[in-house]
Amino acid sequence: MKIKYNLLHKDLETKARYGNIETNHGVVETPMFMPVGTRATVKMLTPEELYECNSGIILSNTYHLWLRPGEDLIAKAGGLHKFMNYKRPILTDSGGFQVFSLAKPKDITEEGVHFKSHIDGSNLFLTPEKSIQIQNKLDSDIAMSFDECPPASASYEYMKNSVERTIRWAKRGKESHNNLNQSLFGIIQGGAYEDLRKYSAIETVKLGFDGYGIGGVANDGESKEDMYKAIDYSIPFLPEDKPRYLMGVGEPIDLLEGIERGVDMFDCVLSTRIARHGNAFTMEGKINLKNSKYKEDFTPIENSCDCYTCKNHTKAYIRHLVNSDEALGGRLLSIHNTRFLIKMMEEIREAIKKDKFLEYKKVFLEKYKNNI
Amino acid sequence: MKIKYNLLHKDLETKARYGNIETNHGVVETPMFMPVGTRATVKMLTPEELYECNSGIILSNTYHLWLRPGEDLIAKAGGLHKFMNYKRPILTDSGGFQVFSLAKPKDITEEGVHFKSHIDGSNLFLTPEKSIQIQNKLDSDIAMSFDECPPASASYEYMKNSVERTIRWAKRGKESHNNLNQSLFGIIQGGAYEDLRKYSAIETVKLGFDGYGIGGVANDGESKEDMYKAIDYSIPFLPEDKPRYLMGVGEPIDLLEGIERGVDMFDCVLSTRIARHGNAFTMEGKINLKNSKYKEDFTPIENSCDCYTCKNHTKAYIRHLVNSDEALGGRLLSIHNTRFLIKMMEEIREAIKKDKFLEYKKVFLEKYKNNI
Repeated sequence: MKIKYNLLHKDLETKARYGNIETNHGVVETPMFMPVGTRATVKMLTPEELYECNSGIILSNTYHLWLRPGEDLIAKAGGLHKFMNYKRPILTDSGGFQVFSLAKPKDITEEGVHFKSHIDGSNLFLTPEKSIQIQNKLDSDIAMSFDECPPASASYEYMKNSVERTIRWAKRGKESHNNLNQSLFGIIQGGAYEDLRKYSAIETVKLGFDGYGIGGVANDGESKEDMYKAIDYSIPFLPEDKPRYLMGVGEPIDLLEGIERGVDMFDCVLSTRIARHGNAFTMEGKINLKNSKYKEDFTPIENSCDCYTCKNHTKAYIRHLVNSDEALGGRLLSIHNTRFLIKMMEEIREAIKKDKFLEYKKVFLEKYKNNI
Repeated sequence: MKIKYNLLHKDLETKARYGNIETNHGVVETPMFMPVGTRATVKMLTPEELYECNSGIILSNTYHLWLRPGEDLIAKAGGLHKFMNYKRPILTDSGGFQVFSLAKPKDITEEGVHFKSHIDGSNLFLTPEKSIQIQNKLDSDIAMSFDECPPASASYEYMKNSVERTIRWAKRGKESHNNLNQSLFGIIQGGAYEDLRKYSAIETVKLGFDGYGIGGVANDGESKEDMYKAIDYSIPFLPEDKPRYLMGVGEPIDLLEGIERGVDMFDCVLSTRIARHGNAFTMEGKINLKNSKYKEDFTPIENSCDCYTCKNHTKAYIRHLVNSDEALGGRLLSIHNTRFLIKMMEEIREAIKKDKFLEYKKVFLEKYKNNI
């Protein structure tokens, strides 16, 4: 079964939408933050810990799983869900972003991308068809089209050619897709150029996908303004009855700005990556547990938080773990940060239902002063 | 309250004993394997995961906690139990072993040991009184006397002087001990010298402790024969109504040999350390998940195992995590290995109750062929 997006309520004041997505692994509500499990594991966490965070869809990565352990092994295991024992929906990224960010040098041709493995330097070649075939075997609920992610610094000319090629790649990928239980999303590119985003959106929608990603906003170098422009220029041309996914975005402020503009899905490694460096999201902004002010702080990261970490451990203890390079520290912070973003989404969904999204955003940002 | 050891059954054929220990944090059964939480954390695992492994006492370390975060901070937190949120009993090692194994160079005087911190190289001085004072503040259920751990290669003359000093240190530590809720164990040293072990045991028992450690068997260089001799030479002089603790030992074969000789308690970092390198205990011996033969093995580490890891994940998946340096791999293996040793102890206790320890040992060793 393909996914089905149900638009359940539109905020009266903004483009924010409340809805849900029916999948082969349950119904999940939107707007939604998707934790990232690049290598078939959300770093340090078990599936049960993710369920306890009320995770919906999680994201995994075609490029990484292709290289190791290989899509055929995962197919033999019965697909990615069985391999990693995650019982809720999984979305796989196409590998496009990773090829352009991790694997250098690269040679982009009409056929695909030649590059070297970031693991052993071997020569690899990824095409739109190959990316889709890998994802078909991984058997994720949602596959993404293979796209080019040009940097923000790309010239108009380069970006225009790239957008056109990405559309041709999306068409080729769609034609080679042959997993009836897997949905496929197209990806809108075009940088911060209004006409290119519009062109990309219109042409990609013409091909007919089950949902649409807005890409190219989370490379290095894009400003927040560029990100918001990319959304504003794309959204008007996307169908209302399909989910919209802002790729690689996970800062609380950006989740709010994205949702206000009509985005339904987000993913980001940020919540678990900053955890491994001792950082926690709080309603008062990001904090670093290494700070000496938490040395004798025997209170939870957040008194109001319902996560395992806040129910069981103090800042002083987590600080000790982080300072001692004890993995439990990063694990406890990963749980908290993941729950923080998912809980924020729960609250936002309630706010949208009551047409109070802007009020929620205002109250949130008044408290969340730092590091926005 | 001090601990109370209850000897409940003696095996008819060997010196193996079944019993329990009443503590301020519950009653625990012996023989028992104690997982090691050196820095106030059993590496990667939460207290709940340890409870699920049916952990009893866990061990933490005076030397490490003294250096970081400091015993005063832990006292302010309300003691080590509250600091790390472990609700079952905790035993703290005295720091003696770590001073002699980690901190070099060192200068041993009658007063104590001068050495350099393994963290920042600063000059430190640890005495029997200081070790006990730190442990009093940590408020563990069981503190250990500060001892010298000479290497197996030490001469008889050196070992004799060391044993005599360790006895004087035990007396000084006991006199400075002032936590009424904490029990204190003495430690028997003397290497593989029969008369020194006997002397150490008799003189240490004269001082009157709540239990007795047998030390100096898990430095580098001791043979298994030396370990078994150390136990055989010490046990006859230890009182029946106090627990005996073989320090730093955790290989399955050594647990069996120790229990057969009358030991009640064991601790070892092995189960979690080998986990982080991809190894698992099984009834058929130790296995390394990196081995290519597990690449497509979609069965649990052990079908018969009741641990979280075996109930939820396959060897192929764990192998992928280990090969990808994903922390979840070491975590899942740590759970399995900890449960393996604790489950083995449960089975041994049942065997002793039925006077079938030797039969259990024989059957176990017939299967456990490798890496003994």
